[in-house]
Amino acid sequence: MDDLKCILPSSNSHNFSYICSVKKREQHYRNILNMIIINIGDELLIGQVINSNAAFIAEKVNAIGIWVEESLVIGDEEERMKKTILETLGKTDFVIVTGGLGPTKDDRTKKVLCEIFDMPLALHEPSLERLTAMFKKRGWELSESNRLQALLPEGAEIIPNDNGTAQGMWFERDGKVLVSMPGVPFEMKAMMCDIVPKIRDHFHSDFEIIHKVVQTSGIGESTLSDLLEDWENALPKFITLAYLPRPGIVRLRLTAVGEDKKLLESMLKDEIEKLKKIAGDYIWSFEDNQMEDEIGKKLRKIKKTLTLAESCTGGYIAHRITSVPGSSHYFKGSIVSYSNEIKRRILNVREVNLKKYGAVSEPVVSDMAINSMDLFDTDFSIAVSGIAGPDGGTEEKPVGTVWIAVATTTRIQTELFHFGTAGGRQTLIERAAVAAMNMLLKMMNS
Amino acid sequence: MDDLKCILPSSNSHNFSYICSVKKREQHYRNILNMIIINIGDELLIGQVINSNAAFIAEKVNAIGIWVEESLVIGDEEERMKKTILETLGKTDFVIVTGGLGPTKDDRTKKVLCEIFDMPLALHEPSLERLTAMFKKRGWELSESNRLQALLPEGAEIIPNDNGTAQGMWFERDGKVLVSMPGVPFEMKAMMCDIVPKIRDHFHSDFEIIHKVVQTSGIGESTLSDLLEDWENALPKFITLAYLPRPGIVRLRLTAVGEDKKLLESMLKDEIEKLKKIAGDYIWSFEDNQMEDEIGKKLRKIKKTLTLAESCTGGYIAHRITSVPGSSHYFKGSIVSYSNEIKRRILNVREVNLKKYGAVSEPVVSDMAINSMDLFDTDFSIAVSGIAGPDGGTEEKPVGTVWIAVATTTRIQTELFHFGTAGGRQTLIERAAVAAMNMLLKMMNS
Repeated sequence: MDDLKCILPSSNSHNFSYICSVKKREQHYRNILNMIIINIGDELLIGQVINSNAAFIAEKVNAIGIWVEESLVIGDEEERMKKTILETLGKTDFVIVTGGLGPTKDDRTKKVLCEIFDMPLALHEPSLERLTAMFKKRGWELSESNRLQALLPEGAEIIPNDNGTAQGMWFERDGKVLVSMPGVPFEMKAMMCDIVPKIRDHFHSDFEIIHKVVQTSGIGESTLSDLLEDWENALPKFITLAYLPRPGIVRLRLTAVGEDKKLLESMLKDEIEKLKKIAGDYIWSFEDNQMEDEIGKKLRKIKKTLTLAESCTGGYIAHRITSVPGSSHYFKGSIVSYSNEIKRRILNVREVNLKKYGAVSEPVVSDMAINSMDLFDTDFSIAVSGIAGPDGGTEEKPVGTVWIAVATTTRIQTELFHFGTAGGRQTLIERAAVAAMNMLLKMMNS
Repeated sequence: MDDLKCILPSSNSHNFSYICSVKKREQHYRNILNMIIINIGDELLIGQVINSNAAFIAEKVNAIGIWVEESLVIGDEEERMKKTILETLGKTDFVIVTGGLGPTKDDRTKKVLCEIFDMPLALHEPSLERLTAMFKKRGWELSESNRLQALLPEGAEIIPNDNGTAQGMWFERDGKVLVSMPGVPFEMKAMMCDIVPKIRDHFHSDFEIIHKVVQTSGIGESTLSDLLEDWENALPKFITLAYLPRPGIVRLRLTAVGEDKKLLESMLKDEIEKLKKIAGDYIWSFEDNQMEDEIGKKLRKIKKTLTLAESCTGGYIAHRITSVPGSSHYFKGSIVSYSNEIKRRILNVREVNLKKYGAVSEPVVSDMAINSMDLFDTDFSIAVSGIAGPDGGTEEKPVGTVWIAVATTTRIQTELFHFGTAGGRQTLIERAAVAAMNMLLKMMNS
């Protein structure tokens, strides 16, 4: 594709994707397609909604070798939309637009796109059928305003929306592609996943891009990068590394770009073997999944069950565990023992331990872990007790102090964490949950 | 300010702010300042980080009567930055730029701004002192790269950063203002709060803006808007209404703009009284808070306690309830009874009910609610049992079927919900949690 521009941002900081390193890597790949994202919606301009759509789209296209050179948000005022979209089409060959496709007369994206691409609106029968069926299923009749959602630009390819009334649209002209999707995140996300293969095919990239994710926990980003420095510097020039931190987790993404898929895969495999030797103690997954997915996979494999006794995490670990489809195969249930009374009366935590050591202590989490395992009759248990704040801290046990125990029927392991207060209550809860799940994964592996 | 542009987006969609309705409302306020936000950073363009800075800035400036007409994200490539900033300064009188101020050579915003405003870098003594003190406090010496952070554009006003090494900068030229702040969210946020009064003074806005939020549940956005149509159309022209939907919830934001604060407040109060008469059955809060906050406030007020018996929501309601600081005052703990065995053995759900009606049934959630209240010895309980999917649905009980019971020591209320499958497992869990918490709030109010 001759008209694909080569864009080479010159960053070489640590938080970056492979694309950013193209320059560093001697401009190895020149035919990288750039694109622009336009998110439409006043709600994004008044601070009411954080724009998560742009990041989602960027991640998806980035994974197929497309670089987002600009991402912009504008309101739903017609003239402005038209002007911005036209300007953008003048700057790039691929544009994704979200928002402004609702059933009310104030959602104007469709109208503007019809003008830009000079297409009339026409009834799109498959969409009308889908909408009618969708409403019928819920026992409703299709209202007039929703029927209008089946009026679509004649000449655009329609992208079905299984989660809402606004269909997606794929426009092409003069070698340029514009995709319009609804702004509702879950509708957009499902649709985006559907069209990734189409985007890849359309721009028929002539090189392979392979990502491998390795996930670590229990080590900070800067310490990890020190540990990996020599290995990183010795990576072949077509493999790049990105550090992607989350609370309690650092994901490492290795990306190989080249023409020979098999060779790339085998090189990546070799590098991951080296990585395992250097940082194996901190690695908990070789996939881009969540810790609860990894736990579920392991528990199903060994046919074992899990329960939880949560104090400061207050049900958050249970929520994470049960967010995995099929978790009922290994998760029977759990208890949130928020008060000492419940710890004592339902979980049989020994009064003497509560009195002598306090609720946030090794003896108490040990009791919680062992007794919850008995109560729920499971093979594994996790118990967490800590001070989530903002109040309740003492000099000896400041906010952020958390004891965690992980037990099997024959073993128990306990650990004390000091998560501090940065990020507040929610971040502490998340860090504690991640640390606890990581301890369980380690115990299952050992 | 004569050079302030009047921007009047013509949207009157349901998802909008007061500003959008200015046109509809006969261009009542003409002196609204517009601005553009530019967030710089490759990490924002590869989907690694969701851009929360733009929403934060937008909310802050919106509250002082400034409308963000565009918000854009670009990478940290020098030429692109320069071009975009210059273009933006040509379009608007007020620009906020975040990012690209780190101590490494790849953070280029300062250099670009020096070129644009034609200012040399010079050592800024107060900043050097602050940096030295900051490092000393942590027992570190000031490194050379961090010393460079005290080299700042001569002629710009420096905005101190108490949370990092990158100072903020306030540039003025030809009646235009550009503010540059670091991209690290907590550094930027603290700095932004510091400069809001300066922004307000500089642009000396001469009108008051008052927001009031009323939250509803149990009614869809379109049905609600039908119900409120006459009232909305009769609103005084300086009060506008925004519909802000979340799963299971529609927030209504009333915004009054004018010169007389007392008058605006009294008018808003009158309108909210009218709203209560029309839609009171669906209103659960007159504040911009979360349902769990409202529950906590009410329970603390009446000094009562709560427990939960969660099946399909799997601990999510417990997580929401315990995310409120101080929730231990009214929440003793709860159970996640994911399997029938646990429902039967720990919650004493009657075997006959499980067999005859199934786990997702009115008799079973009733047993769960009453018995969990007994077990945890509380005044209120919520029980939820449903089919979260993606598997497990039947013809009679498809995925999305949820039974909820709310009980006090003297009363029990049950309700069957069909949430469907749109949005998948997570959305269903959230909808069920919201419906359950709403039922509890209603019971407490009745």
